[in-house]
Amino acid sequence: MSDLRHLLDDVPVVATAGTDLLADSIEQQGARVVRSDWRPPVPGTEAALAKLAADGRNPAANQTAIERMLAVRPQLVDVRVARDAFADMTDRTFFHAGPPLTWERASGPMRGAIIGAMIYEGMATDPEDAAAKAERGEIELSPCHHHGAVGPMAGVTSPSMPVAVVDDAAGNGVAYSTLNEGLGKVLRYGAFASETIDRLRWMDSVLGPVLRAVLLRRGPIDLQALIAQALQMGDDGHNRNRAVTSLFLREIGPALIDGADAPVDERSGVFQFIDGNDHFMLNLVMAAGKLGSDAASGVPASSLVTVMARNGTDFGVRLSGTGDQWFTAPAPPVDGLYLGSFSEEDASPDIGDSTITETVGLGGLAMAAAPAIVGFVGGTAAGAVRRTLAMYEITLAEHPAYQIPMLEFRGTPVGIDAARVVRTGVRPQINTGIAGAVPGTGMVGAGLVEAPMECFAQGIRSLAASLG
Amino acid sequence: MSDLRHLLDDVPVVATAGTDLLADSIEQQGARVVRSDWRPPVPGTEAALAKLAADGRNPAANQTAIERMLAVRPQLVDVRVARDAFADMTDRTFFHAGPPLTWERASGPMRGAIIGAMIYEGMATDPEDAAAKAERGEIELSPCHHHGAVGPMAGVTSPSMPVAVVDDAAGNGVAYSTLNEGLGKVLRYGAFASETIDRLRWMDSVLGPVLRAVLLRRGPIDLQALIAQALQMGDDGHNRNRAVTSLFLREIGPALIDGADAPVDERSGVFQFIDGNDHFMLNLVMAAGKLGSDAASGVPASSLVTVMARNGTDFGVRLSGTGDQWFTAPAPPVDGLYLGSFSEEDASPDIGDSTITETVGLGGLAMAAAPAIVGFVGGTAAGAVRRTLAMYEITLAEHPAYQIPMLEFRGTPVGIDAARVVRTGVRPQINTGIAGAVPGTGMVGAGLVEAPMECFAQGIRSLAASLG
Repeated sequence: MSDLRHLLDDVPVVATAGTDLLADSIEQQGARVVRSDWRPPVPGTEAALAKLAADGRNPAANQTAIERMLAVRPQLVDVRVARDAFADMTDRTFFHAGPPLTWERASGPMRGAIIGAMIYEGMATDPEDAAAKAERGEIELSPCHHHGAVGPMAGVTSPSMPVAVVDDAAGNGVAYSTLNEGLGKVLRYGAFASETIDRLRWMDSVLGPVLRAVLLRRGPIDLQALIAQALQMGDDGHNRNRAVTSLFLREIGPALIDGADAPVDERSGVFQFIDGNDHFMLNLVMAAGKLGSDAASGVPASSLVTVMARNGTDFGVRLSGTGDQWFTAPAPPVDGLYLGSFSEEDASPDIGDSTITETVGLGGLAMAAAPAIVGFVGGTAAGAVRRTLAMYEITLAEHPAYQIPMLEFRGTPVGIDAARVVRTGVRPQINTGIAGAVPGTGMVGAGLVEAPMECFAQGIRSLAASLG
Repeated sequence: MSDLRHLLDDVPVVATAGTDLLADSIEQQGARVVRSDWRPPVPGTEAALAKLAADGRNPAANQTAIERMLAVRPQLVDVRVARDAFADMTDRTFFHAGPPLTWERASGPMRGAIIGAMIYEGMATDPEDAAAKAERGEIELSPCHHHGAVGPMAGVTSPSMPVAVVDDAAGNGVAYSTLNEGLGKVLRYGAFASETIDRLRWMDSVLGPVLRAVLLRRGPIDLQALIAQALQMGDDGHNRNRAVTSLFLREIGPALIDGADAPVDERSGVFQFIDGNDHFMLNLVMAAGKLGSDAASGVPASSLVTVMARNGTDFGVRLSGTGDQWFTAPAPPVDGLYLGSFSEEDASPDIGDSTITETVGLGGLAMAAAPAIVGFVGGTAAGAVRRTLAMYEITLAEHPAYQIPMLEFRGTPVGIDAARVVRTGVRPQINTGIAGAVPGTGMVGAGLVEAPMECFAQGIRSLAASLG
């Protein structure tokens, strides 16, 4: 009877080991499961983990790296034209999401976005013309991440596009992102319809300049403060950004009313465009994340994950201690909810730099703050909480500013440690949009995915090798 | 072993009966507790409950009443001056929160608010002059609720104040509320400093007219849609209204930019005033609630609670089946968090019409949607969820529009049934601001309180008597 009473006094917590079969089944019953990390590490990483342990520098290096990631104070300071913002961008340069990629290996949505951007830049007259020119090598592809930038989904950034400039209030670096177009037939999902191109032209002729004028008038916007508030308002910072977009409109409203050196119809148009797109702030949250990610990069012996990014073909990871090296694996399919008549057969594999949010303690890692997100990406509210709880096992810290009210204001799990990932077999949780596989389709859904283990295994082996 | 396995497979749910000692202790351990209603009803209500049961009309009457409450579609249509909105308001009429009250019995904050309103209306030169005139009966006090209106805290509404006009999109009635002043030294908390009076003057000369112009320009604002979204963004609709206030600013932003027939500094001032006050929408949520409450009133034999309201001296309740009758008990003290150096010794008892939110499935009944509210009113996030779960026991329905993501989008408990309250002993949960006891003090804190059982017991006895 005393054993029985013990079970009644506490919420059952079940420790499981090895195969996930038991754990999954118990979780489905609603109980909390602690998956024990006694299980053997991912095959092929044992020697690397042993070397990392023998070297001894890893814990302190991780501490340094996570402290640098958490020390940045991202603020939106300006909106510039890409060709002015990036010194090494030529008229035929197209940045893209994820690790390096060639046109030949590019997925449908990536090709669609490049085609759209070429038409938008006046480099091609139609999709066939664009594809032929791309095939002949008339454009230069380069990852956003190589230029202090990030872009959601295809992430294609071309010279005429306006880009947000996010810097560190303490003076430590700068990061860039494109501005968010909304959902549906948008370039980042691989669409290149005339409405897509027209919207991009409005964004460079109206949205960018008006936002720039607003920022010059009112001064920088503290992104960390907005994101922190938004996490207490049901956002996760990746696929639910309704609160932070609302708070952003509150920040820019007065300057838009006052005039901000722009005609009234343009100011009203900017307010209504952002109001019509609850994902508007995603790109700015991403740039804020990139700032922290870059700050944490380059600490020898650190296994902190500084970048997770996908180009629709490969999923790529970077670690702090291995700097600019990419560790890639095939981009996985996404388990999602589909729009209209679309199904998983229409879906392209995982794509986009937006996993920078998960890299800095948001998105899939912060889903417990955003139970309403499950209406968009699938799953249950209880599952969203479990996803976050599982992430504390593989992260280095709890975010001091980003708190989850439902977990009694516990900080979000932040700073994925690749060593813990391969040691426990627990993969980072990601929520994401889903692009149509056929170029030109656009968005077909949104869902959940886990980062491929192989990237972390490669990273840990490379990190061990770097210890000499 | 099979018994043990059953316990592991499910989250433990413990049924308890009678004294709360066991249930409280188990809840503190985090388990879910279902308190059985076999316990004897509140003393003095047994005969009334038996008569209600024997009469037989109560269940269908409650169904009719709750359907009427849930059928209204509240929309903000206009802002008018109180003396124009209320036909029976004279120059010396002051509406107030809660059940009927005389100056002699009025609490500190109620006296403070009446004094402030008299100065604001030019009826008195200073607090002493105002108090002397009030004592001589030179003013007329009347509950907001008797005029289709509601007001938070003291709820004092005087002839020159702007009032929001909320009507039913389906044409079923109209409700009014004052506009929210913000926190701190504000009239509704009993303050009458010159900053308080100056703010009221700005509200009638700028805020009211500009909002009216905005509404005429853009058309009505669907309040139910905003509140429903806000519940998915961490609001409860009573003491956490940051999301719904953000969404309201999104609604009015374009008209404020476009011009709305008002000077730019006034439009900018209105945006910034609302942006500076995350409680701005409370009053409009309250008016929306009053619309549902009035629609549900007057169904013979229904024990649905249509009104809970406090004037700082008495806590008053009305039931659908007993129409305009008030059932009162002394207003209880509030268990709260205090601002600055204030403590419970500085606090006035429970006050305000804002409990209309709890009456329509928001506020204390919806706290599971708003875990971050505990930073303002005290308690824990887990406790906020438990408060909501307990309310399903005493309510008639789950709100079809107001859903709680963390409870897998279950509708908020709505439609408090006074019969269930006295039968189970479970009292409605309320969260509330706390006013200083000394007139002129203003806000001293915020906290949690439960409605007094005596009001519901009286109501059920009176309802039984009405059955003839």
